[in-house]
Amino acid sequence: MDTSRAPMGWNSWDCYGAAVTEKIVLQNAAYMAEHLRPLGYTYVVVDIQWSAPQARNNEYIPFTELEMDEYGRLLPAANRFPSAAGGKGFGPLAAKIHGMGLQFGIHIMRGIPRQAVHRNTKILGTDRRARDIAATDSICSWNTDMYGVDPQKEGAPAYYESLFALYAAWGVDFIKLDDICRELPRAEAELLLIADALRGCGREMVLSLSPGPALPEKAELYKQAAHMWRITDDFWDEWRLLYDMFDRAETWCIHAGNGRWPDADMLPVGPIRQVYDPAERTRFTQAEQRTMMTLWCILRSPLMIGGEMTGFDPFTLGLLTNRNILDMHRLARHSHPVWRRRAAGTEWVLWTAACAEGGTYGALFNMGEGDAQLALPLEELELRGPLSCTDLWTGRQDAVAGSLQLTVEKHGVAAFLLR
Amino acid sequence: MDTSRAPMGWNSWDCYGAAVTEKIVLQNAAYMAEHLRPLGYTYVVVDIQWSAPQARNNEYIPFTELEMDEYGRLLPAANRFPSAAGGKGFGPLAAKIHGMGLQFGIHIMRGIPRQAVHRNTKILGTDRRARDIAATDSICSWNTDMYGVDPQKEGAPAYYESLFALYAAWGVDFIKLDDICRELPRAEAELLLIADALRGCGREMVLSLSPGPALPEKAELYKQAAHMWRITDDFWDEWRLLYDMFDRAETWCIHAGNGRWPDADMLPVGPIRQVYDPAERTRFTQAEQRTMMTLWCILRSPLMIGGEMTGFDPFTLGLLTNRNILDMHRLARHSHPVWRRRAAGTEWVLWTAACAEGGTYGALFNMGEGDAQLALPLEELELRGPLSCTDLWTGRQDAVAGSLQLTVEKHGVAAFLLR
Amino acid sequence: MDTSRAPMGWNSWDCYGAAVTEKIVLQNAAYMAEHLRPLGYTYVVVDIQWSAPQARNNEYIPFTELEMDEYGRLLPAANRFPSAAGGKGFGPLAAKIHGMGLQFGIHIMRGIPRQAVHRNTKILGTDRRARDIAATDSICSWNTDMYGVDPQKEGAPAYYESLFALYAAWGVDFIKLDDICRELPRAEAELLLIADALRGCGREMVLSLSPGPALPEKAELYKQAAHMWRITDDFWDEWRLLYDMFDRAETWCIHAGNGRWPDADMLPVGPIRQVYDPAERTRFTQAEQRTMMTLWCILRSPLMIGGEMTGFDPFTLGLLTNRNILDMHRLARHSHPVWRRRAAGTEWVLWTAACAEGGTYGALFNMGEGDAQLALPLEELELRGPLSCTDLWTGRQDAVAGSLQLTVEKHGVAAFLLR
Amino acid sequence: MDTSRAPMGWNSWDCYGAAVTEKIVLQNAAYMAEHLRPLGYTYVVVDIQWSAPQARNNEYIPFTELEMDEYGRLLPAANRFPSAAGGKGFGPLAAKIHGMGLQFGIHIMRGIPRQAVHRNTKILGTDRRARDIAATDSICSWNTDMYGVDPQKEGAPAYYESLFALYAAWGVDFIKLDDICRELPRAEAELLLIADALRGCGREMVLSLSPGPALPEKAELYKQAAHMWRITDDFWDEWRLLYDMFDRAETWCIHAGNGRWPDADMLPVGPIRQVYDPAERTRFTQAEQRTMMTLWCILRSPLMIGGEMTGFDPFTLGLLTNRNILDMHRLARHSHPVWRRRAAGTEWVLWTAACAEGGTYGALFNMGEGDAQLALPLEELELRGPLSCTDLWTGRQDAVAGSLQLTVEKHGVAAFLLR
Repeated sequence: MDTSRAPMGWNSWDCYGAAVTEKIVLQNAAYMAEHLRPLGYTYVVVDIQWSAPQARNNEYIPFTELEMDEYGRLLPAANRFPSAAGGKGFGPLAAKIHGMGLQFGIHIMRGIPRQAVHRNTKILGTDRRARDIAATDSICSWNTDMYGVDPQKEGAPAYYESLFALYAAWGVDFIKLDDICRELPRAEAELLLIADALRGCGREMVLSLSPGPALPEKAELYKQAAHMWRITDDFWDEWRLLYDMFDRAETWCIHAGNGRWPDADMLPVGPIRQVYDPAERTRFTQAEQRTMMTLWCILRSPLMIGGEMTGFDPFTLGLLTNRNILDMHRLARHSHPVWRRRAAGTEWVLWTAACAEGGTYGALFNMGEGDAQLALPLEELELRGPLSCTDLWTGRQDAVAGSLQLTVEKHGVAAFLLR
Repeated sequence: MDTSRAPMGWNSWDCYGAAVTEKIVLQNAAYMAEHLRPLGYTYVVVDIQWSAPQARNNEYIPFTELEMDEYGRLLPAANRFPSAAGGKGFGPLAAKIHGMGLQFGIHIMRGIPRQAVHRNTKILGTDRRARDIAATDSICSWNTDMYGVDPQKEGAPAYYESLFALYAAWGVDFIKLDDICRELPRAEAELLLIADALRGCGREMVLSLSPGPALPEKAELYKQAAHMWRITDDFWDEWRLLYDMFDRAETWCIHAGNGRWPDADMLPVGPIRQVYDPAERTRFTQAEQRTMMTLWCILRSPLMIGGEMTGFDPFTLGLLTNRNILDMHRLARHSHPVWRRRAAGTEWVLWTAACAEGGTYGALFNMGEGDAQLALPLEELELRGPLSCTDLWTGRQDAVAGSLQLTVEKHGVAAFLLR
Repeated sequence: MDTSRAPMGWNSWDCYGAAVTEKIVLQNAAYMAEHLRPLGYTYVVVDIQWSAPQARNNEYIPFTELEMDEYGRLLPAANRFPSAAGGKGFGPLAAKIHGMGLQFGIHIMRGIPRQAVHRNTKILGTDRRARDIAATDSICSWNTDMYGVDPQKEGAPAYYESLFALYAAWGVDFIKLDDICRELPRAEAELLLIADALRGCGREMVLSLSPGPALPEKAELYKQAAHMWRITDDFWDEWRLLYDMFDRAETWCIHAGNGRWPDADMLPVGPIRQVYDPAERTRFTQAEQRTMMTLWCILRSPLMIGGEMTGFDPFTLGLLTNRNILDMHRLARHSHPVWRRRAAGTEWVLWTAACAEGGTYGALFNMGEGDAQLALPLEELELRGPLSCTDLWTGRQDAVAGSLQLTVEKHGVAAFLLR
Repeated sequence: MDTSRAPMGWNSWDCYGAAVTEKIVLQNAAYMAEHLRPLGYTYVVVDIQWSAPQARNNEYIPFTELEMDEYGRLLPAANRFPSAAGGKGFGPLAAKIHGMGLQFGIHIMRGIPRQAVHRNTKILGTDRRARDIAATDSICSWNTDMYGVDPQKEGAPAYYESLFALYAAWGVDFIKLDDICRELPRAEAELLLIADALRGCGREMVLSLSPGPALPEKAELYKQAAHMWRITDDFWDEWRLLYDMFDRAETWCIHAGNGRWPDADMLPVGPIRQVYDPAERTRFTQAEQRTMMTLWCILRSPLMIGGEMTGFDPFTLGLLTNRNILDMHRLARHSHPVWRRRAAGTEWVLWTAACAEGGTYGALFNMGEGDAQLALPLEELELRGPLSCTDLWTGRQDAVAGSLQLTVEKHGVAAFLLR
C-alpha cells in the first residue's frame, strides 16, 4: 500500500446507489484503466448492498432478503453479479479488475446480518452461533440489514476473522466499512475488533470508515485503526455542502499524511444518479468543481470519483486529470487554512501548504456570491518576493513581487505554486 | 371501569420475572379472591414474555423463539400455560380468573415481533405484511423481541386492531404496555395509534404504560391516552429507591384522579425473586414498608402487589389490608407534599390531602437515619384545633389542640386523619 | 402576621416606577383605607429607588447619587418624601399609614450601595468598613446601585443587622427584597444572612423576594427563608404573560399555605404607567382581568394592586372586591390544575381546590381565541351530583346533576363553588 | 513591527505580581539588553495595577484607590515609579528602555475605572462624562478596578482614543489588554472599539489579549483585531498545566503566522514569585523546561520571560538562548502535531513543521511518567532517508536512514531538524 498519498479511484454509489451490477463495474474499470490509471487512480469500489437481489436504487428495502452463506457471511447477488454464481463470490470479478492493473474494493456494514441471527446460523471456526454474538441494542439507524456484534461475546472475533478470510480469498484490496465512523464511542470496541481481524487476514487492504461526520475527539483512534475516515455526512452536488466542507477541512487538515487520510467523500462529477434518470449530471458549476477538486487535493483527501466515467465530457476528464492539481495532491505537506475573511459582501478563504519538492502552495477560494478581486500580499503566506507563480489550473507562470493580483469567479478558486 | 380509585391487584414480575406459569397465576388468584378482593384488589396481571417457551427468570433471552399465530400475534407458550394449547390463547385462563370475581391482565411490548418481520407474516384484515409496517429504526433498548411499528405506514392501524380484537376475545381487562412511557416523544404517534385501537376494540381495558420515569412535559398526553403511567424506572426493595420516589411523587401528585393515575410501580413485599431463590423475601424493614404503602396510598398510585401471596406472613397481609390506609387510598383528594426539611441530622417530609368524606389527611415521613421526634403545629396543615386525630396504622384516636407530638421510626411514617 | 392568607395591598411600581412620592403614597393609602381595607387589603408598599432624588420613571439612572447616612444605609430622598427631612427616614410616613389602620412596606436591593463602597463608609457596630464586606464579583444585572455583600466577610452580619434595626425603628411591616429570588444559588448565603437579620430585628415584617422566575429546585429554601417569592419576571398587562402564568402556577401551587406564598406579581389594573402618560389604563380586557384575579386567588398568590387607586372605575373596584372571589383567596386549600386540553381550536385549563369551609372550587379557563362552550362532567372534579353550584363572579346559584354546561368568553373564566 | 516572528521579551507578573517597581523593571531591562537582546528579546512589559500605590503581591486589593488624571485615565503610582511624578506618566521610563535598544509595554484592563465613574470624571475631547459611557452590567469577575465601556454610548470612542493618545505620548510599544480574550462575545464590540482606537493613535503597538483560554470559534476575530491572544488561563510551573497545553497548541497551531500569534503565556523560569519568597524558583524540571521551550517555539508562541532575569543561573540563560531552538521559533512554518499515542504505559506526542530555510522540524515529546525509547520511522514525518539530523538541544548531528532511535527523559523532548 502506498502510504504517501491518499487513495484514488471510483465508487458506485453516486451513480448507482445500492443497485450497481457487474457489467457497470467492468465498464468503469475499463475506462479507468485507459484514462485515469496513469494519474494514480486505481481503486474500483462496489458500494452498499451487493448481496441484495432486489436492490433498485439509492433507497434501502427494509428487511430485504440477502444472499448469504451457511456461516452468515453475505455473498454477491448472482442476478446482479453473474460471475459470483456457484458460491464463487467476488473472486472472479476481483481477478478481472486486477487483470486491468487496478484494485478491487467492497462496502460492508458493521455487524452480522439480522437474517443470520433470526436463523441462528453457525459461525465458522467456533461452536457459537449468530444469536450468541449479536449485540441486542445496536442497530444501524438507516438500514435494516445488520445487528452490531458484541465484542465481549465469545465467537465475536471468530466471526470477523471469518469475514476477512473470505475477502482475502476473493482478492479484495479495499474495505469501505459503514455504520461505524460517527458511531464511536458506542462502536469503538467493535472497530478495534474489525481492525485486528483485517490486520490478521494475510492480505493488505485499505480500511475506509463511514459515514461521517467523524468525531474530532476520536482523531487518534481513526488514525490508528484505519487508513481513511469520512469527515462529512454524504456529500452531494450542492454548493451549501461544499461551502460547509471548509469547516470540516479546517478541523481535520493537521491529521493527514503517511497512510492516514481525512475523507471528504466521493466527487459527484459527470453523470450521476443514473439509477433515477439517465439525463442527470452534476449540478455543480465548473468553478465549483474546481473549488471542490482544489480543496480535496490540498487537504489530501482520497479522490473517489462518483460519476459514470464512460459518460465523461472533456471538462470532467480534464478536471480529474489536471497534472498540477494532482501534483498538489501528491506533494502537499502540512496543509492548513490561513484565514477566512468576510467584508463588504465578499468572503474569502485562504489555504496554504508546503510542497515536498520545494515551494509553497496557496489556494484562495471565493466563497461569495459574485466574482471578486483581491490583492494578496505575499506576507500572508509568509513569503517574500520576487518569486515565480504557477497558476495550477491554467499552467500560466508569472513573476510576482509584493502581491498577487487575483480575480476569482463566484464559488471559484485561484490555486498556485510559489517558488 | 371504576375511575374513582387507582387499580389494585397483583403482577407476576417481582416474584417470577419472565417465567411465570398458569399454575402460579391461579394460586395467586385464588389467594386474592379469598383475602384481598373484599378490600378492592381485583387485577391479576401476567407480566412480560408469556409467549417465550424458554423463559427462565428475570433475564431476557436474546432473539428467543416466541409462540405466534399466522398474523404475527404472540400467543401464550403452551408449555407454561397449558390451557392455551390448541390456539385458545389466554381465553381459558381469563375465564377462570373471571370466575373468581377477579379481572385479568397481560403485558405487551410496543411493536411487532421481529420474527414476524423476518418471516414477513400477514397482517389480519389487510394485504400488507409485517415488513411493510415495521419501523426500521425503532427497537427496544433492553429486549430483542419486537420492532416498533411505523404509524405512518398503511397497515399499521390494522395490525394494532388485530391485537386488541384478539385480547378482547380472550377477555382481557388490563394491558400493561411496555417500551413506551419514557420513550415519548419518539413513540408518541405509536401510543396514540395503540390507544385508538384499544378504545375501538369493544371491551373496556385499563391501559398501563411502562417503563418510567414518565416525562413530566408529557403529563397531559399520558392523562388523555392511558389510565396509569409509570413515574419511575423499575422499583425494588432498596431504601434509596424509596427515598427517591418522594421527588417523583411530588412531581406527579397533582395529576392523579378520575381514572388517571401516576404509577409508582409494584409493591415488592413478602416472598419475591422466587425464580432465583425460594428463601428470598423483601429487604425492606417493616417501617419502610409502611412508608411505601402510605406514600402509594396518599399519592393514589395503583397498588399492584409484587410478592407471592400464598407465602404472605401476617405482617404483610396486614400491611396490604389496613382499612384506614386503604380508605386514604380511596378518599384522598388533592394530595401534595407540604414541605421537606433537613436540620440537625434529621430529614422530614410532610404530605397532606383532603378526605372526600371530610377532614384532612397528613403523613409525616422520617427520611433520616434514626428514630426522631417532632412537634407538628396544626397550622402546618392549615388547621386549627381542637380536632380529633386518628393514627391510620394503629387506629388509635386522640384529641389534639395546638401541635401533634410525633415520634417516628427511622425510615418510617406517622399517618393520620384530622377531623 | 396572619399566616392563613397571602398578603394583600398596593405597590407603587406599575404606576409610578422608580419615581413615586409621599403625596401619591398617601392618597392611595387613604383610598385603600376607605374602600379596600375591609376586604383584607392592608399593605402600602413603596417600590424601588426611593433614595434617588433624580428618579423620573421606570428606568434606572446609572450610577445616580443616592441619599445615604454615614453608615452606608440608604435614606428616602427628601425632595420626594418631605417628611423624611432631617434624617427622620420613613418613620413619619409609616406612622401616618399605621394611623389609617394600614401597614407600611418598602423595597430594598440586596447588597451595599456602591457609593458607600467607593467612599468606604463605616458599618454600624463594627470596625469594618464598606470595602471590607462588598462582594467583588456580585452586581445586579439591571441596576447599578449596589454591590452584593460577601457573607463570609467579618462585618457582613453587622451591616444587615444595622439595616433592619433602622427599618424596625421606622416601623416597616413589609420588605420587598430585590435582586435575589432568581439569583440563587449564587446569592443563597446572602439570603440566609438577610433572613436571620430580619428575624432578629425585633419587629415582624413580611419578607418578599424578587425578581422571578423563582427556581423550582429552591422551593424549600424560599419557604423557609421568606413569606412570598416571585414566580415570574415582571408581569404586565399582556395576554401572553397571563397565558404563560398558568405554567408557573402549576409548578408552584403545591407550595402555597401557612405563611408561604408563591407570588404572581402585582395586578396591573386601572390607571397604570401614569409616570409616562396620564391616559394609560390597563390593556387587559375585562375577561382577562377576571381570569387574572381568579388565577391569583385560586393559586393563593399575594394580591398587590398595581394601579392608581384613586382613578379606579366601578369595574376595577368591583373586580378587586368581589366577595366570592376573595373568599376563594381566603378559603382555597390544596389548589392545583386538573388538566389542560387542546382540541379543535379550543384550549381549556381546569383548576380545582378544596374549600376550607366545605365544598370544592373549580375554575375553567378559556385560553383559546374565541368564546367557547364546554360540558364539564362532575367526575372531572371527582364529584357526584346533585350539587349546588355558585358562579363566583355573578353570584348566581344553580343545581347541577351530571355536568356543568359552561359558556366562557375568549380569555375568560368560569369560576364556581360546588357544594 | 516585525510580523515574521512572535514577540519576545519579559513580563513582570510571574515574579512580582501586581507590585513591580521602576527599579525592578530597569534592572531586568539592563539584563535583557546585555544578554538577550541579540537573540531577539526586546519587549519589557509592566503588568497589572501599576496605578495602585498599595499593591503588595499577586492578589488584588478590592476597591483600592488608583492614581488617575482628571479624565479618568490611570497613571503610574509615583511611590512605585518615581519617574512618573508630576504627571509625567510612563514617558520617562519608556525613554530609558528605548535608550537600551528595547521596547516598552504596559498592561491595561478593558473599561473605565470605577472610581472615575463614581466621581463622574470628564472624558477628554467630548462633553460626556464617565457615567455616560460605563456599561451597567459589565464587570471583571476577578478585579474591582473597572467597569466595562458600553460601545453604543456616545463618548465611548473618545474615551479609548484619549487612552491611546496618552500611551502614544508616553512611547508605549506593547499593550497587554486584559479581561477581554475569553470574554468574547460579550465584549466583542468593545474589543473592536479598542483595536480601532489603537490603530488610529499614530504609534505602532503590539496588541496582546488576555486572559485565556481564547475561544476557538472566535479565531478569525482575534487574528483581525490583535497580534497575540492567550490560548490558556494563567500558566504556572506545574506539569499538569504543561501537559494540558498540548491540546491547546493543537487547537491553535494553524492560526500562527504573519503577525498573528497564539500565546501560550509567560515562561515561568528561574526566580519567580519573589514577591512571596526570595528563595522561590521554578518547580519545573530541566526536562520540562526544555519541553515547554520546544513547544512554545514550534507553536511560534510569543516568548515572554516570567522570571527575575538578574538571578538566572547558566541553565536558565542557556535554555532561553539556545540558537537552534530560537531558529525554530523564527523559521518554523505550518507547525502541527502528527499524532499522540498511548501504549504500554508510555505516551508520546509528535509535532512537525517545515523549516523556512529548507528541511523539516520534528519534536517528540515524552508525556509519560518515565524515561522511554522509541524508533521513529522517517515515514511518520513523510520523509525518506538518508538525511542529516541535527539534535536541536545538543547540536549533535547524525546521518539517519530508516528510523530515528530516540531516548527521551520523562516529561522531556527530542527536537531535531532533518535535511
